[in-house]
Amino acid sequence: MKRSNCCIFILCVLLPAFGRAVDPLPSWNETAPKSAIIEFVEAVTTPDSPDFVPEAERIAVFDNDGNLWPENPIPFQLAFAFDELKRRVPNEPDLAADPMVQAALDGDIAKLLEGEHHDGLLRVIALTHSGMTTEEFQKRVEAWIAEAKHPRFGVGYDELTYQPMQEVLTYLRDNGFKTYIVSGGGADFMRVWSERVYGIPPEQVIGSNVRVRFERTEDGPVLIKTFDNLFVDDKEGKPVGIYQFIGRRPIAAFGNSDGDKAMLEWTTAGDGRRFGLIVHHTDADREYAYDAKPKSSGKLVEALTEAPEQGWVVVDMANDWATVFSEEVPQGE
Amino acid sequence: MKRSNCCIFILCVLLPAFGRAVDPLPSWNETAPKSAIIEFVEAVTTPDSPDFVPEAERIAVFDNDGNLWPENPIPFQLAFAFDELKRRVPNEPDLAADPMVQAALDGDIAKLLEGEHHDGLLRVIALTHSGMTTEEFQKRVEAWIAEAKHPRFGVGYDELTYQPMQEVLTYLRDNGFKTYIVSGGGADFMRVWSERVYGIPPEQVIGSNVRVRFERTEDGPVLIKTFDNLFVDDKEGKPVGIYQFIGRRPIAAFGNSDGDKAMLEWTTAGDGRRFGLIVHHTDADREYAYDAKPKSSGKLVEALTEAPEQGWVVVDMANDWATVFSEEVPQGE
Repeated sequence: MKRSNCCIFILCVLLPAFGRAVDPLPSWNETAPKSAIIEFVEAVTTPDSPDFVPEAERIAVFDNDGNLWPENPIPFQLAFAFDELKRRVPNEPDLAADPMVQAALDGDIAKLLEGEHHDGLLRVIALTHSGMTTEEFQKRVEAWIAEAKHPRFGVGYDELTYQPMQEVLTYLRDNGFKTYIVSGGGADFMRVWSERVYGIPPEQVIGSNVRVRFERTEDGPVLIKTFDNLFVDDKEGKPVGIYQFIGRRPIAAFGNSDGDKAMLEWTTAGDGRRFGLIVHHTDADREYAYDAKPKSSGKLVEALTEAPEQGWVVVDMANDWATVFSEEVPQGE
Repeated sequence: MKRSNCCIFILCVLLPAFGRAVDPLPSWNETAPKSAIIEFVEAVTTPDSPDFVPEAERIAVFDNDGNLWPENPIPFQLAFAFDELKRRVPNEPDLAADPMVQAALDGDIAKLLEGEHHDGLLRVIALTHSGMTTEEFQKRVEAWIAEAKHPRFGVGYDELTYQPMQEVLTYLRDNGFKTYIVSGGGADFMRVWSERVYGIPPEQVIGSNVRVRFERTEDGPVLIKTFDNLFVDDKEGKPVGIYQFIGRRPIAAFGNSDGDKAMLEWTTAGDGRRFGLIVHHTDADREYAYDAKPKSSGKLVEALTEAPEQGWVVVDMANDWATVFSEEVPQGE
């Protein structure tokens, strides 16, 4: 090989191959959000960078529904609750007689959401998420997630995580970050599968929660799920939950709705280099397209308006993600 | 050196020296508790052991007051509260006029503990632990712990941690355990110094807690400490707090009072190899001696009675600890 040919070989074949081999975000297109993520991570992890952050303070928080997996046609935890009611109604006449249970069985979300406090929805959640031991609940969630299929994609709900966000989770952890879920969904529901599905252990899952009750039984001590002291980990509740559970301010926050706005604000208002990102659902072909008028949850108006001024990165799903789900998921309609 | 002399040299000099060099618990006497700790750790970390526990499940929980540092003559957080009142009273006449503040300034613990809910104590805690931003509170705790001295030992409170327990924390972490504090004390108070003093980051500190309030101000978003939704992380509250924060059952629990009994029960009732330990304060010369009748907190009666049946290791501080505090602390009276 002549020397010039050799240089061309290195420049055209080896370097790009090396580049591809170490690309931490292969499911992201080469657009602004991908560069912004990589630039942030390099800035806070390079020891002589003015933005360097010690490893113990590299906390990154992620919303779950609509940010790590879809929330359509309904949030997956609600699908769990409806399926639980369907399973139990044949053997529990009292349950069948409850009008809110009937609304759930009919898929009448509007009825469940009536009233300021969404009493119907809370009733359905309480009926399916309390009154049993923590271990019994865990078994029910495990059984459901092993069987249930998403109505559009026909695969298990836990196969529907966003591949680009899985790559961000891994990339951050490879760079010394501790990754947390901070979700309006129930902590107990997510903790059953978060480690297997996201590599996030239960103790790094913050979500809406209720208090359990300690009871001594003949078979030893148990914890009973109640519906007391409900804490809704959404909107202003998110920084509140983060403070309660983590005790310090994250340096990066990832969300997709106005429910994540306070978390983004609190995270990015801290001293030093910070990072905020919003996933904008613009991809009806491969996933869903919504913002101001979501089918159920995930309204995104205020956070999107404030994003430029706040310096939050907005991901245009259709444009910025090369793939949405893993290869096993049927793509498109 | 003759060959037999060489063997003697190896057996008598080198091997014990090697043994000492790797002793993970040098401040423990060679009595039963030390062997029990080491045997447990080896059993759950040896890959081919029937008791092997994967690293992700190696969760160990530690009470703080009386278990990692003393709780005499009063719990150190209460000393902080009293010192805060002393500092503020000259400039805050309303505070000076409060009878419970007066009781605190007089050191009248009995008055503060009157009534079923210890209203006086709660009032003193509320006055000194709420109504400011989380960052202001953190600064107050930092300033106090940098200045205040323990009345008997004359050193900073944070120098008074138990050396043998520090060694257990390190030993467990060196063996893949995640170490948590689970204390009746306030989480926000401990999180200020837990990482520096125990190597336990804020997110692994569970304690009594109240809800903060998210507020948008001209200077950006802040979290205000309130006294709402008080959760007392003591007695039956300990397994409740552990479940809420960690989401899974620990495999080892360390405590010293009846306030730790439910935590010990729940931990050691789990499947597989488990470990429970109680520090019994028997050492008036080097620390304090109390159980049924403590000076303030730390009553130990029921847990001590149940220990043999439950298989909990009881540490006789006078007999089992070679040293109590680090070398810098004046030993004895």
